[in-house]
Amino acid sequence: MEKGSNLDALFWPKSVALIGASKKELSIGNVITKNLLRYGYKGQIYPVNPKADEIRGIVAYPTIFDVPGEVDLTHIVIPPPFVPQAVEDCGKKGVKAIIINTAGFKEMGSEGEALEKDFLARAEKYNLRIFGPNCQGIINTDPSIKAYCDFTFTYPDPGSISIVAQSGGVGAIIMQNFFDVGIGMRMYASNGNASDISIPEVIRYWGEDEGTRVIVLYVESLSDPEEFMEVTKEVITKKPILAMRAGYTKEGAKAATSHTGGLAGGIAIDIFFKKAGILAFKDVAELCQAAVAFSTQPIPKGKHVGMITNTGGPAIIATDELSMAGLKIPQISDKAKAVLKETMFPAASISNPVDVVATAGAPQFRSAIDVMMDEDHIDSIYINFVTPPFVDCESVAREFVEVNKQKKKPIVCNYMTDKSQWIETTKILKDGGIPCYDFPGIAAKALAALADYSELQSKDTGSAKCFDDVDKAKVKKIIKNGRSAGRELLTSSQVYNILESYRIPLAGWSVTKDADQAVKTAEKIGYPVVVKADSEMISHKSDMGGVAVNITDADELRKVIKNMINRIAIPGMKFLIQEFIPGGTELIIGANEEKGFGHLIMFGIGGIYVEVLKDVVFDLTPVTQIEAEEMLSSIKAAPILNGVRGEKGVYKKGIVEIIQRLSQLVTDFPEIKELDMNPLIVFEDKIVVVDGRISI
Amino acid sequence: MEKGSNLDALFWPKSVALIGASKKELSIGNVITKNLLRYGYKGQIYPVNPKADEIRGIVAYPTIFDVPGEVDLTHIVIPPPFVPQAVEDCGKKGVKAIIINTAGFKEMGSEGEALEKDFLARAEKYNLRIFGPNCQGIINTDPSIKAYCDFTFTYPDPGSISIVAQSGGVGAIIMQNFFDVGIGMRMYASNGNASDISIPEVIRYWGEDEGTRVIVLYVESLSDPEEFMEVTKEVITKKPILAMRAGYTKEGAKAATSHTGGLAGGIAIDIFFKKAGILAFKDVAELCQAAVAFSTQPIPKGKHVGMITNTGGPAIIATDELSMAGLKIPQISDKAKAVLKETMFPAASISNPVDVVATAGAPQFRSAIDVMMDEDHIDSIYINFVTPPFVDCESVAREFVEVNKQKKKPIVCNYMTDKSQWIETTKILKDGGIPCYDFPGIAAKALAALADYSELQSKDTGSAKCFDDVDKAKVKKIIKNGRSAGRELLTSSQVYNILESYRIPLAGWSVTKDADQAVKTAEKIGYPVVVKADSEMISHKSDMGGVAVNITDADELRKVIKNMINRIAIPGMKFLIQEFIPGGTELIIGANEEKGFGHLIMFGIGGIYVEVLKDVVFDLTPVTQIEAEEMLSSIKAAPILNGVRGEKGVYKKGIVEIIQRLSQLVTDFPEIKELDMNPLIVFEDKIVVVDGRISI
Repeated sequence: MEKGSNLDALFWPKSVALIGASKKELSIGNVITKNLLRYGYKGQIYPVNPKADEIRGIVAYPTIFDVPGEVDLTHIVIPPPFVPQAVEDCGKKGVKAIIINTAGFKEMGSEGEALEKDFLARAEKYNLRIFGPNCQGIINTDPSIKAYCDFTFTYPDPGSISIVAQSGGVGAIIMQNFFDVGIGMRMYASNGNASDISIPEVIRYWGEDEGTRVIVLYVESLSDPEEFMEVTKEVITKKPILAMRAGYTKEGAKAATSHTGGLAGGIAIDIFFKKAGILAFKDVAELCQAAVAFSTQPIPKGKHVGMITNTGGPAIIATDELSMAGLKIPQISDKAKAVLKETMFPAASISNPVDVVATAGAPQFRSAIDVMMDEDHIDSIYINFVTPPFVDCESVAREFVEVNKQKKKPIVCNYMTDKSQWIETTKILKDGGIPCYDFPGIAAKALAALADYSELQSKDTGSAKCFDDVDKAKVKKIIKNGRSAGRELLTSSQVYNILESYRIPLAGWSVTKDADQAVKTAEKIGYPVVVKADSEMISHKSDMGGVAVNITDADELRKVIKNMINRIAIPGMKFLIQEFIPGGTELIIGANEEKGFGHLIMFGIGGIYVEVLKDVVFDLTPVTQIEAEEMLSSIKAAPILNGVRGEKGVYKKGIVEIIQRLSQLVTDFPEIKELDMNPLIVFEDKIVVVDGRISI
Repeated sequence: MEKGSNLDALFWPKSVALIGASKKELSIGNVITKNLLRYGYKGQIYPVNPKADEIRGIVAYPTIFDVPGEVDLTHIVIPPPFVPQAVEDCGKKGVKAIIINTAGFKEMGSEGEALEKDFLARAEKYNLRIFGPNCQGIINTDPSIKAYCDFTFTYPDPGSISIVAQSGGVGAIIMQNFFDVGIGMRMYASNGNASDISIPEVIRYWGEDEGTRVIVLYVESLSDPEEFMEVTKEVITKKPILAMRAGYTKEGAKAATSHTGGLAGGIAIDIFFKKAGILAFKDVAELCQAAVAFSTQPIPKGKHVGMITNTGGPAIIATDELSMAGLKIPQISDKAKAVLKETMFPAASISNPVDVVATAGAPQFRSAIDVMMDEDHIDSIYINFVTPPFVDCESVAREFVEVNKQKKKPIVCNYMTDKSQWIETTKILKDGGIPCYDFPGIAAKALAALADYSELQSKDTGSAKCFDDVDKAKVKKIIKNGRSAGRELLTSSQVYNILESYRIPLAGWSVTKDADQAVKTAEKIGYPVVVKADSEMISHKSDMGGVAVNITDADELRKVIKNMINRIAIPGMKFLIQEFIPGGTELIIGANEEKGFGHLIMFGIGGIYVEVLKDVVFDLTPVTQIEAEEMLSSIKAAPILNGVRGEKGVYKKGIVEIIQRLSQLVTDFPEIKELDMNPLIVFEDKIVVVDGRISI
């Protein structure tokens, strides 16, 4: 099985060997044997143990070479030092894939890392694929294979969701929850150190798996963002991916780093999820609850909800939660109301929400749902259903199921009952694929997830514009010069030249070597001017007294330069003379390299907005025009750009263009580690960069 | 049973009659009879029905007068028109309390309201207390009474939490959840229209009930905030109250208003909860999950968590969630680490979190918990416990329970297992009172709730200062004059005089009747000045061109006044001349009457902070110094008050004092509906009000 080929031997093994199978009850080798047996694995099981004749009643073999048949997949559960040789043996035997459950490799330091490299080299020799080490394994619930190649303990029913988790602990929580709520699972994979077979490979494989309707993903970091982005962008066109990244707080990120070894991630992953159309969750419980709805319900067209309730309070809680999630509960048409007036009990509330009242039975509920299904401007249906002891609830449930068969609009149900009494009603709803929840807020959040997913998919942000008026060659030369001079931080003139090469507008500037030249230049630019000390040796010119603003004449300019020379005694220091720009609104736009993802582009209004209120937004390169516009509108202080308190708005078109040009610049030159334009000054009809920094 | 007396007849009835008991299976009268029987009610049951000899095997009586024994409590489930007479009959019979389950009263309009008034008047005649109408009823799980006077369907085990819910639907969700998770319940009450017995009365009663350890409360609005505040302030000193208010979004509030009839509430309830030490939740699921921990665990001393985990990923999720909730996971001492180095497996992570690794058994877990219990700076313990099939999990669980008996620090557990397999382990944890959750984030939130409650209780905000330098008599006179003139909005001079009477500093001002007087006054105040048109007829003087600022000399002043007279042709209009205050930072401070609660006090930085960023905070009167200081520090732009970008901070002490004086003013004069100081200008060492409005 070559790298990049499909993972059939891993997920559909015709035979599984276990190197390290054991008779000891509480050992991993024994547990995996038990799991294969108990789950009803349809292939051959070959325990390998030099000291045992049988494990759990299955014939055991002293070595892998003694196994009589072909072996698709082998578990290795022996101690780390013996793993490389076991891999070599598997190669010789013609095994196609190995799950190394054993821990104690890369995650334990250099000795373990050497062992990991060793077995990987041996595997490569034999075109043998490795899953793990330090991992749980895989499960395939398909009735034709029932492969439980894992030491976990949940025996899932077949379902339509496949789960891939960087952390086996979290994967197991998700799998167990799907089991508890009864939606089952399609396949499971948790690959620990991921030394060979990666999460993206698994996702790509499931993209082709017809039985997988939805992919659930848990990550803490990405070891190869490019591969991940490429694969998910392709797979998302075929099926929803629900994802969670842990470590979104500073403390959580620290914990994640020590868990995974500090790979790429952070906010870039979240932005990528959004750009790729992957629905992201911050809470694994919410992810699971949403998955229940995704497993049976269609994706709604929009955010308008029709609510039906037979109890008051829970409808308020649901309204709160739906509103918080940006969903609307619009009024229904007069036609709809007329129908409901006929069909509802007198005490019912004919509106949206429709309160059918506690005494409502099947005809009332059915009519209310039918009305919501028929309303063109209603995209989904939320039902609060408490089971009153004086109502025939089974017939109500049957109506839900009947309508659900239309698969026209998604339905979720906050189902308030004692399941140990309303057994039949509960069964009807479950068998009928109605996603049921115990709390109104949770049902609302699950519905909101469907609507969010719909919005993500329908969003077209266009493609990044390629400005052809830029001078790429010039930038290349400047960066090359900077590099060959061993410079990490470019000089002001280098920075300004780079920005100008990409047609990013700058306050008029020129570099001069002394006071005489400065005065001449200032006359050309026009007073008042700004002077900035310019030298590769200066990194924080303001702090060193290397900046003077609002200089109004030649005398002052000469005096300032003299002072600067006295203060900053750097030989060969030059003086950048620049147009002084009073007034306007200060902005900050920047780019930061994010290994494997491209660059993070940052935008904010300068001064207290950035410094105090941390009111900044980020996006990942390439940034399209629509995305740049969204950056402008998503800062909290966005109204300031449109003009407040009688002021006119600023030149937003100019800001958007600069963001796009910056995106192109750092995409063309990934060697730019950091680029800050701070500040830019924007007016009603123009924008100029006043200062900038670039590090390479 | 007189009003204000205890509710024994309601919660501990020796006998229950049912007017409207019915043989029809799916009727409320039948269901309540069934519930009393099925739940094992220890008292006498007297179905009343003129047409039946028995209901569910219990002798029925034609009228309440035919009931042989004394009747403590009677359900009324007959149609609304017959209710008043039934109440009268109960009075004559000597019944002590009635639960009117029947709906169709006040909530249905004027006809129903009249019926409600009617039965209330009759009840009063007989000192008969009414619970409801349009309500579920009560449940008392005490084994000595087992009173199930309700038509709900959950048969709760005895427990220590009592639930009172304005919405029966939400109350039933909470009760069912406590049943599902197995923590049981003490008493339950949902009183619908609350025509007589109120929620505060129930809370007060449970304050005295020894079996009630925790009170859970669900409200949508408060009909009598004063009573509510008085009662809860008293009860909270005896036991925790966990509360949820629905309708916190605009849309939810609208839904709540139509559900409850638009009573007082909103943000004032939330602030009151905080002031009173009631732990508030925005989600009923989170409330229930927290209640599980409150029912068995001690309250932690602080916010420092010791985390123990046998799986990596869930610890990251828990770290995220705990950090978001403001909890810390501090490093453990060297002494603790030394102990753990001895007791843990080599692969374990000796830190906080302690990763005991998946193979850890009872000794490892026990040592880790003991270490956390011994660390003085650790206040609570969070455990991630997945049940590996190769570990003796029962013995691990027994150690948790053993330590839990110390009741020294709270323990919560994210318990990851298949409960249908780990039956004994699950039972050990449950019987041992370990709060167990299915998801790491949920366990973390529950622990955070305990810590939040601890913080609420330990917080001392002091008492409101009473400034004795104020001229209450003068304000009284001004308001009286304003009222007798039929004025809702006071004139500028009235407003300024009121503020000055409470020693709130104002920019120098004087009211003049014409240009000549204005010029003389301006000379006294000193140029530049501001002119404001002053008349009771003018409500928005700026919009009418009635304000001119920065007037530098007499000529300009005359011109401005002439223009004002031309523009605003109001006879008898006066001109307020005021010192012009350039620079400084604009603030807004205001007070709004909140019926039953006192006043809401608002604070924010003026301009874009209030207008664009909505960066304002609220508190309820009376506001103490500590609370006023907290208002200043809790706006997002708080650093601006301390000084940013090299600027000095502002006169915070002055702001704090003005907030306190305003609190005293509106408390002294509750007839002030709205008071706005907008703007106040604050400098490094002074603060002045520049404009204000008061409506009465």
